[in-house]
Amino acid sequence: MSHPFDDALAAVAGLDHRAMDEAREHHGRLTKPAGSLGELEVLGIQLAGIAHASPPPIPEPATVAVFAGDHGVVDAGVTPWPSEVTRQMVGNFCAGGAAINVIARQVGAEVVVVDVGVNGDLDPSPNLLRRKVRHGTANMVDQPAMTRPEVQAALDVGAEVARELVASGARCLITGDMGIGNTTPSAALIAFFTGRPVAEVVGRGTGIDDTMLGHKISVVEDALQRTRREVPLGDALGALASLGGLEIAGLAGFIVGAAAAGIPVIIDGVIAAAALVTAATLCPNSPAYCIAGHRSAEPGSRAVLEFLGLRPLLSLDLRLGEGTGASLALPLVQAAARVLHEMATFDQAGVTSKDG
Amino acid sequence: MSHPFDDALAAVAGLDHRAMDEAREHHGRLTKPAGSLGELEVLGIQLAGIAHASPPPIPEPATVAVFAGDHGVVDAGVTPWPSEVTRQMVGNFCAGGAAINVIARQVGAEVVVVDVGVNGDLDPSPNLLRRKVRHGTANMVDQPAMTRPEVQAALDVGAEVARELVASGARCLITGDMGIGNTTPSAALIAFFTGRPVAEVVGRGTGIDDTMLGHKISVVEDALQRTRREVPLGDALGALASLGGLEIAGLAGFIVGAAAAGIPVIIDGVIAAAALVTAATLCPNSPAYCIAGHRSAEPGSRAVLEFLGLRPLLSLDLRLGEGTGASLALPLVQAAARVLHEMATFDQAGVTSKDG
Repeated sequence: MSHPFDDALAAVAGLDHRAMDEAREHHGRLTKPAGSLGELEVLGIQLAGIAHASPPPIPEPATVAVFAGDHGVVDAGVTPWPSEVTRQMVGNFCAGGAAINVIARQVGAEVVVVDVGVNGDLDPSPNLLRRKVRHGTANMVDQPAMTRPEVQAALDVGAEVARELVASGARCLITGDMGIGNTTPSAALIAFFTGRPVAEVVGRGTGIDDTMLGHKISVVEDALQRTRREVPLGDALGALASLGGLEIAGLAGFIVGAAAAGIPVIIDGVIAAAALVTAATLCPNSPAYCIAGHRSAEPGSRAVLEFLGLRPLLSLDLRLGEGTGASLALPLVQAAARVLHEMATFDQAGVTSKDG
Repeated sequence: MSHPFDDALAAVAGLDHRAMDEAREHHGRLTKPAGSLGELEVLGIQLAGIAHASPPPIPEPATVAVFAGDHGVVDAGVTPWPSEVTRQMVGNFCAGGAAINVIARQVGAEVVVVDVGVNGDLDPSPNLLRRKVRHGTANMVDQPAMTRPEVQAALDVGAEVARELVASGARCLITGDMGIGNTTPSAALIAFFTGRPVAEVVGRGTGIDDTMLGHKISVVEDALQRTRREVPLGDALGALASLGGLEIAGLAGFIVGAAAAGIPVIIDGVIAAAALVTAATLCPNSPAYCIAGHRSAEPGSRAVLEFLGLRPLLSLDLRLGEGTGASLALPLVQAAARVLHEMATFDQAGVTSKDG
């Protein structure tokens, strides 16, 4: 039986350095001081490397895929929100009333919701992909969150969704997430893969108090200790099964699927960061296709960006998830490609160059 | 004779705190954890205060006004670019080939160019407003850059352009600038109004070497010493005449004009920052209508943002001007208003609140 995630893993290539050099040189001919578009130039060069073309195509249309799943660790008291809110928010996404819907409309992106592990049955909706692997994870404090076949299935869902969206025309993918409790497994995965102390990567999520924060740290510590006993060093898939979430595994597959399709993927906040650091371990070439859309207020987001050497485009103290921060960065990504297409050169515009 | 700038000064009111309170309360009812949209919530509340309405209208359409002028201080050797590039770039703006044209197209903004002081005659163009006050400034090293009537005329041009654009339907204004050499007068004004040491606010502009940077610092020091001898303390208009640029004065008038019209204005990089700190001195209520679009790589930009307590939406190492950074921030500003319009409340969406 073929596994879409394994197929994607095998298909991810490195960036095209010739196209990147061409984009870099073209930037030097455009009517502006060399380097004066800062990070937008860096981004345009990356997009050329991803697309194997200079100028790179403008990354549009864009689709936000909101992967949704529930978390057994909610039973350990790590969030004041009940798990049923995951299912309710999926309804809100499908009805178009959530923050991600509004922001996606502002920037011209589509939204699809992927049920990879919501605890409960969901009504059909044109924007809902029903790919449930199981009804939420187990409580990772005393057992693995998922089995190994389940985590493989969730990775497959993510890779397959990326492949399908690109086949339908998407030229930019954006990570989104929904799952009450999901900052807890994210922090656990980030601590595991970056080696940072738990207290440095656990945050307040939706806004918990000091008491619950201390408890959340001890929950993550317990899950990590169990994992270190049970999972051999270097077994990234085993760690993801032990500590992950179904939507986080889905997102890791989605990132690798985007890279396999040669399409840029804009990474959202801390949940996406946990998926990204997992994807980076499973597929070291995949982060080259990723654009850090924003740095979340959650400390784990910064930890992953530093670990992978990625610079976020935005830093607006968002801590909502859903893909909101990444979607807000979309116009910047599109502008980075557009300047390489549409700006006049010094010769074309009859402008005297500093050196000419 | 009526002066549009003086009329604008008299018309600027404080923000509407009742509308701001309503927007703050409405944010608490929307389907997201309280405060989780970070700076976007702060911005939405500011927009409500500016518009005297909650939710505030979405700030569209938007217009970038690129104020252009030349600088006598170029004769002092502060830039490797010849002054004629100002006129050439105005042609590039009018033809649609500059970075600001491309970025404005990306974000759906219009571009107009205001010739307030270009050294040379410009061909007519539908996007060019010909409001020249004089053909470039004098060299501020040994004389005032402008006379007092000239600086008043440039302020009037800016205020009048803001009024006209709003009368034509613009609901968001964006500052842009073009003027070879204009980081030098900007640094001088920023040092004068913030009190920061010259060496801390002079930057490399379009990318000068260490030798030219040292010279630029001494040029600014000389101009400041002359100004401190000639201009009485507290005479902001005199300081602007002594150290400013025609496009900088135009932008200061434009900022006050936007505030007078009750329209938000997105501030670009260091040239706009110099205009903003001048406007803030002449009209202390005007910064409340301003949104810091980005923090430029130029150190004077950071100095002004810190001095006025403004947090930039973007920080992408841009140092191009033209309004590029501010225009890139436009979708964030529009999203901040849109979430207040279009997001569902907990009640509307049937989502269980943390407290409910």
